[in-house]
Amino acid sequence: MEQALRKIINDPVYGFITINDPLIFRLMAQPVYQRLRRIHQMALAHLVYPGAVHSRLHHSLGAYHLMCQAVAELRLKGIDISPDEETAVKAAILLHDIGHGPYSHALEYTLIPGVQHETLSLLIMQQLNDLLDGELTLAIDIFTNQYHKPFLHQLISGQLDMDRMDYLTRDSFFTGVSEGVIGYARILKMLHVHEGQLMVEEKGIYSVEKFLVARRQMYWQVYLHKTVLASEKMLVKIMERVHELYPLNGTSLSINQPLDYFFQEFSGEMTKTALENFCRLDDADILFAIKKWASFSDPILSLLCTSLLNRKLYKTSLQTQPFNATKIALLEAEILSRYRVDKKDLHYYIFCGETANTTYTPEHEKILIIFKNGMIKNIAEIDNPLIHQTLSMPVKKFYICHL
Amino acid sequence: MEQALRKIINDPVYGFITINDPLIFRLMAQPVYQRLRRIHQMALAHLVYPGAVHSRLHHSLGAYHLMCQAVAELRLKGIDISPDEETAVKAAILLHDIGHGPYSHALEYTLIPGVQHETLSLLIMQQLNDLLDGELTLAIDIFTNQYHKPFLHQLISGQLDMDRMDYLTRDSFFTGVSEGVIGYARILKMLHVHEGQLMVEEKGIYSVEKFLVARRQMYWQVYLHKTVLASEKMLVKIMERVHELYPLNGTSLSINQPLDYFFQEFSGEMTKTALENFCRLDDADILFAIKKWASFSDPILSLLCTSLLNRKLYKTSLQTQPFNATKIALLEAEILSRYRVDKKDLHYYIFCGETANTTYTPEHEKILIIFKNGMIKNIAEIDNPLIHQTLSMPVKKFYICHL
Amino acid sequence: MEQALRKIINDPVYGFITINDPLIFRLMAQPVYQRLRRIHQMALAHLVYPGAVHSRLHHSLGAYHLMCQAVAELRLKGIDISPDEETAVKAAILLHDIGHGPYSHALEYTLIPGVQHETLSLLIMQQLNDLLDGELTLAIDIFTNQYHKPFLHQLISGQLDMDRMDYLTRDSFFTGVSEGVIGYARILKMLHVHEGQLMVEEKGIYSVEKFLVARRQMYWQVYLHKTVLASEKMLVKIMERVHELYPLNGTSLSINQPLDYFFQEFSGEMTKTALENFCRLDDADILFAIKKWASFSDPILSLLCTSLLNRKLYKTSLQTQPFNATKIALLEAEILSRYRVDKKDLHYYIFCGETANTTYTPEHEKILIIFKNGMIKNIAEIDNPLIHQTLSMPVKKFYICHL
Amino acid sequence: MEQALRKIINDPVYGFITINDPLIFRLMAQPVYQRLRRIHQMALAHLVYPGAVHSRLHHSLGAYHLMCQAVAELRLKGIDISPDEETAVKAAILLHDIGHGPYSHALEYTLIPGVQHETLSLLIMQQLNDLLDGELTLAIDIFTNQYHKPFLHQLISGQLDMDRMDYLTRDSFFTGVSEGVIGYARILKMLHVHEGQLMVEEKGIYSVEKFLVARRQMYWQVYLHKTVLASEKMLVKIMERVHELYPLNGTSLSINQPLDYFFQEFSGEMTKTALENFCRLDDADILFAIKKWASFSDPILSLLCTSLLNRKLYKTSLQTQPFNATKIALLEAEILSRYRVDKKDLHYYIFCGETANTTYTPEHEKILIIFKNGMIKNIAEIDNPLIHQTLSMPVKKFYICHL
Repeated sequence: MEQALRKIINDPVYGFITINDPLIFRLMAQPVYQRLRRIHQMALAHLVYPGAVHSRLHHSLGAYHLMCQAVAELRLKGIDISPDEETAVKAAILLHDIGHGPYSHALEYTLIPGVQHETLSLLIMQQLNDLLDGELTLAIDIFTNQYHKPFLHQLISGQLDMDRMDYLTRDSFFTGVSEGVIGYARILKMLHVHEGQLMVEEKGIYSVEKFLVARRQMYWQVYLHKTVLASEKMLVKIMERVHELYPLNGTSLSINQPLDYFFQEFSGEMTKTALENFCRLDDADILFAIKKWASFSDPILSLLCTSLLNRKLYKTSLQTQPFNATKIALLEAEILSRYRVDKKDLHYYIFCGETANTTYTPEHEKILIIFKNGMIKNIAEIDNPLIHQTLSMPVKKFYICHL
Repeated sequence: MEQALRKIINDPVYGFITINDPLIFRLMAQPVYQRLRRIHQMALAHLVYPGAVHSRLHHSLGAYHLMCQAVAELRLKGIDISPDEETAVKAAILLHDIGHGPYSHALEYTLIPGVQHETLSLLIMQQLNDLLDGELTLAIDIFTNQYHKPFLHQLISGQLDMDRMDYLTRDSFFTGVSEGVIGYARILKMLHVHEGQLMVEEKGIYSVEKFLVARRQMYWQVYLHKTVLASEKMLVKIMERVHELYPLNGTSLSINQPLDYFFQEFSGEMTKTALENFCRLDDADILFAIKKWASFSDPILSLLCTSLLNRKLYKTSLQTQPFNATKIALLEAEILSRYRVDKKDLHYYIFCGETANTTYTPEHEKILIIFKNGMIKNIAEIDNPLIHQTLSMPVKKFYICHL
Repeated sequence: MEQALRKIINDPVYGFITINDPLIFRLMAQPVYQRLRRIHQMALAHLVYPGAVHSRLHHSLGAYHLMCQAVAELRLKGIDISPDEETAVKAAILLHDIGHGPYSHALEYTLIPGVQHETLSLLIMQQLNDLLDGELTLAIDIFTNQYHKPFLHQLISGQLDMDRMDYLTRDSFFTGVSEGVIGYARILKMLHVHEGQLMVEEKGIYSVEKFLVARRQMYWQVYLHKTVLASEKMLVKIMERVHELYPLNGTSLSINQPLDYFFQEFSGEMTKTALENFCRLDDADILFAIKKWASFSDPILSLLCTSLLNRKLYKTSLQTQPFNATKIALLEAEILSRYRVDKKDLHYYIFCGETANTTYTPEHEKILIIFKNGMIKNIAEIDNPLIHQTLSMPVKKFYICHL
Repeated sequence: MEQALRKIINDPVYGFITINDPLIFRLMAQPVYQRLRRIHQMALAHLVYPGAVHSRLHHSLGAYHLMCQAVAELRLKGIDISPDEETAVKAAILLHDIGHGPYSHALEYTLIPGVQHETLSLLIMQQLNDLLDGELTLAIDIFTNQYHKPFLHQLISGQLDMDRMDYLTRDSFFTGVSEGVIGYARILKMLHVHEGQLMVEEKGIYSVEKFLVARRQMYWQVYLHKTVLASEKMLVKIMERVHELYPLNGTSLSINQPLDYFFQEFSGEMTKTALENFCRLDDADILFAIKKWASFSDPILSLLCTSLLNRKLYKTSLQTQPFNATKIALLEAEILSRYRVDKKDLHYYIFCGETANTTYTPEHEKILIIFKNGMIKNIAEIDNPLIHQTLSMPVKKFYICHL
């Protein structure tokens, strides 16, 4: 009766997600995909927003669901999307974040310096493509923007792609920050394609305005919330300290083969072995490690680990101007005198930096609007001061964290 | 300006949770409380409902929030609740589940046979009470129902307590199973106290009816969903296998001190050491262990661990009648022949059992209704066939899981 | 660019309703359809639930939207529905309630005794069919269940039709009675067709259970809420009194041509003139009339009208047993003595009656379930005591209303 | 058992609204208050947003509910609000819009030229105060900002008052325009009082930003939506035409005593008689009149009325620049030639104008922010470009409507 290959997944955000494509089922069955269940979408944001514990797998399914809707809407408007293209663009969005490792953004560039998660996603997609006898070739072409219909790539990676449409909606839902609600349903209805480019119908301008403002709010209220920032920077410091201690204390710090690999052997080059080890890691390994290191003899490592576990986070300030050097010096002096800290280790107790919406690159902030009369404009040229302002707004803040 | 001791926590379920009691802040700062962040409220239910990844800490905060509202509502109705009682009942609900260990219900009685989590909650509350110089004495009296105002205990543990009010609401929210929505806001408005007993006003009967039906739906659609059941039983089998293998393979199976303790030393008696070790464990330890054991040489252990990690779960059936012995025998024979399994290990590949709503005990299903004319009736005596039916409904099902 | 014939309507219940069928646009442009804007979906329920002011037109659009989804779901499951059938079944659901007059159910059988609204819907559909050169012929065949695919009719009128799916969802939404939420999204996913009959997949049983319980709750908490009942019975009494007074006071009671017609000329036969006059009436005429009659010289009429306008409603009791004759007699005596009421007019000051879910007819309560193995059962034969109970539950209550 | 004077009203927006103040019950029982049930909160917006049919009474209850919450929050922060002040400020918010007449804003200044609804609210409050033996004196002092605690007035009328907090939330809810969601719960938590002035805590800045953007979106997407605008301007034209025709056609145009009064006798002075007549009018009278006038012999009046009833609205354009005179002239010429329209009546067939957020007055846009260090700033001085931009944004647009 019911077709074998139709599965309905309850999603508190969208109601139900329907899977009915054999390739999608095969991808979801891969261990490297199931591993996304064990990676938090929002790293340590749950220390501030207790509901923000949803997984990368859940986000992946959500973006997939929006892609299904976007494809259906565009077809209703007469845009030609073949069944193969449909499957490929769905597979590509499902896997777009497969290259994320433990604690996602928080440890990006820390475990594997200099390599961004998109690159890793591509490497993993290529491996899966070998495994699946080339079934992902078109998906990879779309993912890498080599396909002759650019709008398919733009649905995966662009200013209004299904990735950010889902993560803003989902992160807003699980944090309970209503300011981040973006009205995805209306934006989806307003999508259009003209000469191969994804664009938005004129009457969708207010929805785009809302989207940009909501994204901005999510950055400052959630993603770059000072306490979230502090906890994630402390996590980076933990990894840094282990790297430093590892040469002399390998045996005591050892966790398991794949994690040890990155402290001991990894040359920085993304070899097959490096990728294999990377794919075996998830949040559980790091969390377990932190619990173990919390009782390690090094006072710096144990302080950082214990503090993070028990949510006794460093004091943090965040502001739009750089911090005054004198103020920093005073704080440093106080820490040195109070905690008998070695000067060379001071950076574990107090550290400054800049933070910015890293995915936010104004020059790429290109959203095309198509008017009733057929005219097309980049949204930056539209006579809408609120959008201008949001687009040109400072995206950088300065932070200081200290014991 | 703003009082130091007022904190607002975003909760996607209730909007905002306000903490403004010094004792509650102190309790929340305890490592044993923060550990609840690392224990899933719904164990492995996220394998079916990907959103169901919320933590025990989140549930604890939610139940605390409902308690704040219940106390406020009852006071508006003239019920006397002193400031000390208020603090105590809030502390007690915050800690009511503090005795849950890794994977909560799924491993209850497995790690520590014969001891239910409420007993452990009490032991931990007593330890905290020592630490906090007796500040929890009244909370413990209420928790153990030794206080002279029974309704305070009933708000923590009873048919309409804040615990189940929150978990049904929260689990329904995070799974996306709308059938589980209970209408907590209305029930809270309908609570009353008469001669020290918690009861519900007459016009709240339909809300109680809804509550009972919703709870029933959550049991069969979520808590006892056959795939959730299968995964949690497989987790138990993993622990069982490790117990069996440990005497001869301790070194290779070893994870960390507290977990090893339960395989190696634990006598079954809840000593101080046992409790200390227990309080150091959370989901991360078990999950890490499963990842490690997945490559252990024992084929049974590695099969179970790999299957669980990659969500290749045993086939499962669930029905209201016991399974036919012949059918079981046939399945067993097939497994024996197909997988070259040792007969004594067959129970790792195929197992049957009963499942029931363990917290559901009809004899305790006492909900008092107070009528406009002052008359009081147990809900079981009310002329409402739907409630009767729900109360007297079979709560047991039989399952079979096999490779 | 955007197709002329695609319109998106914001709906707080479902998000967006898309209209893209030329026939639907033509139907919506008819004055007789626009008139549904001026008829409350829930008559006087807003006197208790202030949000319940949504219109018949809104319900019509909602049922239409669910029909679009149902058709899409069934097609995904391989059920053959031709484009013409799709348009017809959508047109039929859009018009299914077009025969409702002022205050819908509350005045059904009062303005036009003995004729139910479905009959009037059919008459109006036939008129529109003439106007639209037969474009509604197939829709009418489906509406009257003369088409050879019964499931299309069942989607319009059956136990799980789009009509009640929408009204339960919508009425629950606008009243704020969360007990009435039915989980329509899941039921839609579970629909199936076998040998031309609409049915529900086995795993949808809990959703059907939820649906039946929710419907029951809406009846007793909302539709038959004693205060709603009182107000709607008072409205009927107003009409009754005007009928009685009209022969002698026509000029003073006169409102406008179409309403006067029903007090003065209407023979009971549904002539073309009667239908024309009926289609010119909506809630505004009745409400205006009540405001006028509130200052008419007859004390009974002015009392009833003033009370209704100012929400000073009669005292009302509702119970499962008939009211005791002695109790009624005592109340009557009191009213006679206190208000100097003429005995023959007593029924305007005190009246009893039965109320029941009029659309609820157990013998028709046939919901077919299709099992994985292909077996089909009526839901009444399913081993689910809660469903049995809900189905066999008393649907009648007795009321008494008095000054 | 339950106190007589506690009533819980279901509200789909906030869940439940609790009434427990005797004065509030008395006010709600007044016919002049119950009349708000019969006035749409959003006039004719339901012609575009079918859900927007909620009443002024519902908004009044919602604003009252938010006031209850605001008072509770402020008290928790140590702000002194006496029981009498509490009752008064609740009464004042309940009655703040009591001076609205039929179709609220749409006919403001049309029925009673030159008098805004706040003035009428005050007149009615004074009448009620006489009736209630001075119980409203303090409420009136607060309403007119004569009380020595200005923050109480600011909660009723100010940039972040409970009036606009409710109407934005409620209108967004009933229209289904998610862009208008303001996050009222968080703003309420952030309110504070310093030296008698209402202000917002520093960490509420993003919520205020969200509020300002949401309000802006509601203006352009909903309140000033071109089709809503067209319908409401057509309603004004209807009234204008009736005024013009009345001297010669009084008898045929007559509706009822209070409405006739405003066409026939009303001098422009707000006498007791004028106020009495005004208080007897609501949407039903106007709607009934339009239905009657639709068949009146004057082609202009019948065209306008028929068009409005059947939602065949004038074509409308809306833009930020004034319309080009040549373009207008061309349109006029076309109408003159096509419809044989008398030149002096042309303004009934084509009309231009400006529209603006009338309640939006930049000079009053004063929202005070209180910083952690005690410093207070007007929000316009805050370093937040998005807020600046929103505040200084053009609030005026130009429209043209024509047959």
